[in-house]
Amino acid sequence: MKKGKLYGVGTGPGDPELMTLKAVRALQEADVVAYFCKKGATGNGRGIAVAHIRPESVELPLVYPVTIEKHRKSEAYGAEIGTFFERSAQEIAVHLDAGRTVAVLSEGDPLLYGSYMHLHLRLANRYDTEVVAGVTAMSGCWSQAGLPLVQGDDILTILPGTLDEAELVKRLGETDAAVIMKVGRNLPKIRRALERAGKLDGSVYVERGTMENSYVQALDERGDDPAPYFSIILVPGWQSRPGAAAQTETAA
Amino acid sequence: MKKGKLYGVGTGPGDPELMTLKAVRALQEADVVAYFCKKGATGNGRGIAVAHIRPESVELPLVYPVTIEKHRKSEAYGAEIGTFFERSAQEIAVHLDAGRTVAVLSEGDPLLYGSYMHLHLRLANRYDTEVVAGVTAMSGCWSQAGLPLVQGDDILTILPGTLDEAELVKRLGETDAAVIMKVGRNLPKIRRALERAGKLDGSVYVERGTMENSYVQALDERGDDPAPYFSIILVPGWQSRPGAAAQTETAA
Ligand SMILES: C[S@@+](CC[C@H](N)C(=O)[O-])C[C@H]1O[C@@H](n2cnc3c(N)ncnc32)[C@H](O)[C@@H]1O
Ligand SMILES: C[S@@+](CC[C@H](N)C(=O)[O-])C[C@H]1O[C@@H](n2cnc3c(N)ncnc32)[C@H](O)[C@@H]1O
Repeated sequence: MKKGKLYGVGTGPGDPELMTLKAVRALQEADVVAYFCKKGATGNGRGIAVAHIRPESVELPLVYPVTIEKHRKSEAYGAEIGTFFERSAQEIAVHLDAGRTVAVLSEGDPLLYGSYMHLHLRLANRYDTEVVAGVTAMSGCWSQAGLPLVQGDDILTILPGTLDEAELVKRLGETDAAVIMKVGRNLPKIRRALERAGKLDGSVYVERGTMENSYVQALDERGDDPAPYFSIILVPGWQSRPGAAAQTETAA
Repeated sequence: MKKGKLYGVGTGPGDPELMTLKAVRALQEADVVAYFCKKGATGNGRGIAVAHIRPESVELPLVYPVTIEKHRKSEAYGAEIGTFFERSAQEIAVHLDAGRTVAVLSEGDPLLYGSYMHLHLRLANRYDTEVVAGVTAMSGCWSQAGLPLVQGDDILTILPGTLDEAELVKRLGETDAAVIMKVGRNLPKIRRALERAGKLDGSVYVERGTMENSYVQALDERGDDPAPYFSIILVPGWQSRPGAAAQTETAA
């Protein structure tokens, strides 16, 4: 029997219109649609893609273990989440072995800090696999903010907000532009780091970018109360000045 | 008279199926479709989007001045390209003033090292403007390569291959993962820098990612002949090992 095909499908950052034509087609082909979610929730990836999931497709929610209390770097957490990814991969493998096409939804782009990576690594060597690139959260956010981020020879650094303050200060000081992901309760620390690096001014906070109720705010105008999961900080490198035009390459 | 609306439309990296639903809609709304191109060519952005350009839309090619011989950092080049962006913005403004909706095509994502940025900066303050985020070249390339790039606390650095060798060595040594854009004739220098940083092993070269005739190759197996414009180098940070699962955050 012919094995099924695995799709890692990027859903884009939130606005369902930012899904690609290819993502829509993969969902039309899928017999099974899998997605990560928290217990009691339906998953953000599913929420973005729902209009394109066929009624006859089987839905396979992959429910994260409730480890939110445990420290993310503890051994117990590591073991539990490892077991979870292992079991999720096996559940998907059962469908693939039965010849079914499985689409795994992934917010933004699947291979940029996405949980899908853990399935990919366990399945792509055994099954026909295709990753459908998606619009990343950062692209969605800087587009909504209308904020040109990098141009010419600018260096762009993507930093997880989980890094410690000294590390953030160092990295922010050395780069032209930055994107800080995983903001959440790291917000006060990130703000201090930006201030120490002399880059608070001009930094932009985007909450729930391209989703409903999203908003964009100068970071130095936002309070220090914890940010939600879907928030990002943009540190533009390129000064929006006409003189910068000189740094642009023409397409060759 | 009501002024027209400006769209900066990301076309994605090359595969027309990687256009978003929103990009397609913007093209359906557009009275004028503008795109950058070289003299004698029709432009890559147009090539990606062509199936969605309405026959009744006016096409506005923005033809780069022939400055390829001049050094990109020379004053003459700077002045000429600045004048070109100024004139291009004015051509678009004429249509917007006449109440026409103008879509400017931009390969990948419009605000990531894109020429569109120079129009945005000259027009967005005067006209109703919306940027339609696109799938970036890097996402298209690592998806095609099936290469998980960053996970957990990894830092990702985006480097233009135009930087000098010492700078590249330093930056590559300090980051977990990297993407090197603008490869072209910088390829031998980039390879040397990766070797000196101890990261040649594992680095991947992607040419014309997601386009026709695209291919993926281990960088250390590729010769030093100049790469085409559409090429990129991926330096994965995240070792594809099951143990890495422990570093993943659950969605909160
Ligand atoms: C685990 S990463 C996943 C990134 C995703 N795969 C991508 O391609 O962008 C989750 C982080 O992305 C950011 N994020 C995702 N969606 C977002 C949105 N709509 N608005 C703001 N930030 C978002 C947040 O910083 C969040 O902590
Ligand atoms: C001026 S930048 C534009 C980037 C684009 N706005 C984006 O979002 O990715 C052009 C560079 O992107 C890279 N690039 C663009 N399309 C590509 C493709 N299909 N395959 C490989 N590299 C590509 C090359 O490194 C090229 O030098």
